[in-house]
Amino acid sequence: MSLLEDARTRDAADPLREYRDRFALPEGVIYLDGNSLGVLPRATPERLDAVVRGEWGDGLIGSWNDADWIGLPQRVGGKIAPLVGAAPDEVIACDSTSVNLFKLIAAALQMQARENGKRRKVVLSEPGNFPTDLYMIEGLRRQGLAERRLAGRDALVDALVANVALLLLTHTHYKTGAVHDMAALTRAAHEAGALVLWDLSHSCGALPVDLNACEADFAVGCGYKYLNAGPGAPAFAFVAERHHKALQQPLTGWMGHAAPFEFSDDYADAPGVDRLLCGTLPIIGLSALEVGVELVAEIGVDRLYAKSQALSEFFRECLAVHGAGLDLVSPPDPGRRGSQLSFRHAEAYAICQALIARGVIGDFRDPDILRFGFAPAYVSFSDIAEAARHLAEVLERGEWDRTEFKQRAAVT
Amino acid sequence: MSLLEDARTRDAADPLREYRDRFALPEGVIYLDGNSLGVLPRATPERLDAVVRGEWGDGLIGSWNDADWIGLPQRVGGKIAPLVGAAPDEVIACDSTSVNLFKLIAAALQMQARENGKRRKVVLSEPGNFPTDLYMIEGLRRQGLAERRLAGRDALVDALVANVALLLLTHTHYKTGAVHDMAALTRAAHEAGALVLWDLSHSCGALPVDLNACEADFAVGCGYKYLNAGPGAPAFAFVAERHHKALQQPLTGWMGHAAPFEFSDDYADAPGVDRLLCGTLPIIGLSALEVGVELVAEIGVDRLYAKSQALSEFFRECLAVHGAGLDLVSPPDPGRRGSQLSFRHAEAYAICQALIARGVIGDFRDPDILRFGFAPAYVSFSDIAEAARHLAEVLERGEWDRTEFKQRAAVT
Repeated sequence: MSLLEDARTRDAADPLREYRDRFALPEGVIYLDGNSLGVLPRATPERLDAVVRGEWGDGLIGSWNDADWIGLPQRVGGKIAPLVGAAPDEVIACDSTSVNLFKLIAAALQMQARENGKRRKVVLSEPGNFPTDLYMIEGLRRQGLAERRLAGRDALVDALVANVALLLLTHTHYKTGAVHDMAALTRAAHEAGALVLWDLSHSCGALPVDLNACEADFAVGCGYKYLNAGPGAPAFAFVAERHHKALQQPLTGWMGHAAPFEFSDDYADAPGVDRLLCGTLPIIGLSALEVGVELVAEIGVDRLYAKSQALSEFFRECLAVHGAGLDLVSPPDPGRRGSQLSFRHAEAYAICQALIARGVIGDFRDPDILRFGFAPAYVSFSDIAEAARHLAEVLERGEWDRTEFKQRAAVT
Repeated sequence: MSLLEDARTRDAADPLREYRDRFALPEGVIYLDGNSLGVLPRATPERLDAVVRGEWGDGLIGSWNDADWIGLPQRVGGKIAPLVGAAPDEVIACDSTSVNLFKLIAAALQMQARENGKRRKVVLSEPGNFPTDLYMIEGLRRQGLAERRLAGRDALVDALVANVALLLLTHTHYKTGAVHDMAALTRAAHEAGALVLWDLSHSCGALPVDLNACEADFAVGCGYKYLNAGPGAPAFAFVAERHHKALQQPLTGWMGHAAPFEFSDDYADAPGVDRLLCGTLPIIGLSALEVGVELVAEIGVDRLYAKSQALSEFFRECLAVHGAGLDLVSPPDPGRRGSQLSFRHAEAYAICQALIARGVIGDFRDPDILRFGFAPAYVSFSDIAEAARHLAEVLERGEWDRTEFKQRAAVT
């Protein structure tokens, strides 16, 4: 049986096969980049048209009440909650991942300052964490409120010393796909008196996450990857219920006010995670996020995770059959990685471009990582077999070695 | 000649009459609330459909380069710039007005701290400024970085004492429509060693603003009012070129990095206003903003302003003819107010609801303000004559005095 025949047999038996049609996948494209930008759900354009022409165009200002625009962040947050092991009132959809990181890092520092004076100012993370996670610490350092410390994965627990206020990690690493042990690291941080903030951008919608079982304090996550909410979609934030009363964050905008329409001069925190809201709610973006979240919730994270492991293992199998030797930087154990496989190659950029020219979209991460995401809601086993064949051919034929594949675009 | 005949004559002579059809105004509605949420431009749904189905759906991740998503904040900012008297590279479109306020208040405080140590920490504003402007100071006060001081309009200049770091004012007042003298107040602040941040949310797209002629330091503004970019649209921020080198703000996300796609662990400010970017760009929202901005730019701010003054004066004339005595809280001189008229009435909420029941949408601002916005791009003189007649009838007949008009909705 050829690899493609094998793939077709697997596709026929795939319990998620019907969902592929719920996404507007372009013809002739094998899309292995859903971990960068998820594919458009077919239901989204219609929903957005109803929001734009109906709710905005016809309903105008009345839609804040009549279409419940005002309740969107909580409603969408409540639908994200079960995907990450949170209670509905612990999650809210708003702003960008970066802005939400700032709110929660600052909130954690303020909690620590209240309890421990200025003794704990260190935000501990790992080198090579997704840049914006590391950069948002810098903004607070500039304000004199934080110190940044980085320790490699193996040294993290030992680095949890007395002046660490917060451990900030991305659950699934954006480059390698390696997954941290959330329960163990959260426990270690708590034992050291630190709080924990998990970035779930590469986890939410791809693998099971159980924030409350792990006793996580805070989390953020992205709307435009596995939640398929479109480029630069609103993000989300989680705060464990036990912290709701003490929570204070510095982006104290009018939507986070306890009574925004009383228009008082003085700020008063809204209850719970509502106080994470800041400016006027981005209704179009939140509406697209709701569609994406509902679709992931309908499919179910456990089924998505099972298929993503099968897809990535099959990709490795296909590469082995083709004899395409590549340096895997992702954990070989599928139980220890997210929904992706990454390989190191000095010509990763040009290989990625050569694959795109063949209709296989993966991505490149500076300086030498070739990354393939297996968004299981719409990627088929046939996609995998074909992608592996193309990759093997590009490598075998040295097809990447052309000038046009080596010229870098603005965004890579 | 009846008021309605008079209005029709004015409409026939209105040089902006052709533009009304460029907006999707619902049938049977007189919309005097464009200063809260602007009307949908007819071109927007088609543009968003092209972005969603074409750029996102078909173009997928490649659209960051191919559709120049990565350049949207600068491109849209550059189109907003001439509307506010700025150079194209002084304005960038991003985040919400509230988040942009935080960035620029923090940046101003940091500039002052660098030059003057901790002597200048006061952010001076006025009581009754739009709440989010006042609340964003609170966030920085919580961080120990700011003190808030409020002084009434007449006392502002005297309040510019030696510890004032920043004067933060809304150019056109959201409740009364009163317009500050930007040139005089900016000069007074500079003479006192303070920087100035103008909130242009109720000005941009409605009346001429000349930030650089006034030597303003910073400004922010709203996308969803007179720029007609939809509910919770991205906002914009202005930084005078002379401050670009010294500018530092705390929301140091990856999109504000000098080389975001090098994925380095350390933050480095992008040049100029690009460093105000934080998280991944909200492409759908920015695309709607571009449509709205282009339309306002095509009509021209001077023509919009001239018509808005004529509309509001005609509204007052009509009310006078009807003998509807209302307590005007806006400046009676049209040269000293924005594109709105506000009246004080103990039953403002119920009157507003009674008008909505008649198809006239104005708005209510707690506790007793009835506010009518005259967005001149789509409001006609006939709208004004009819709205004034309805208002006079509601008052004369005591029509507001019904239980259903007195029950408050969630958003008022």
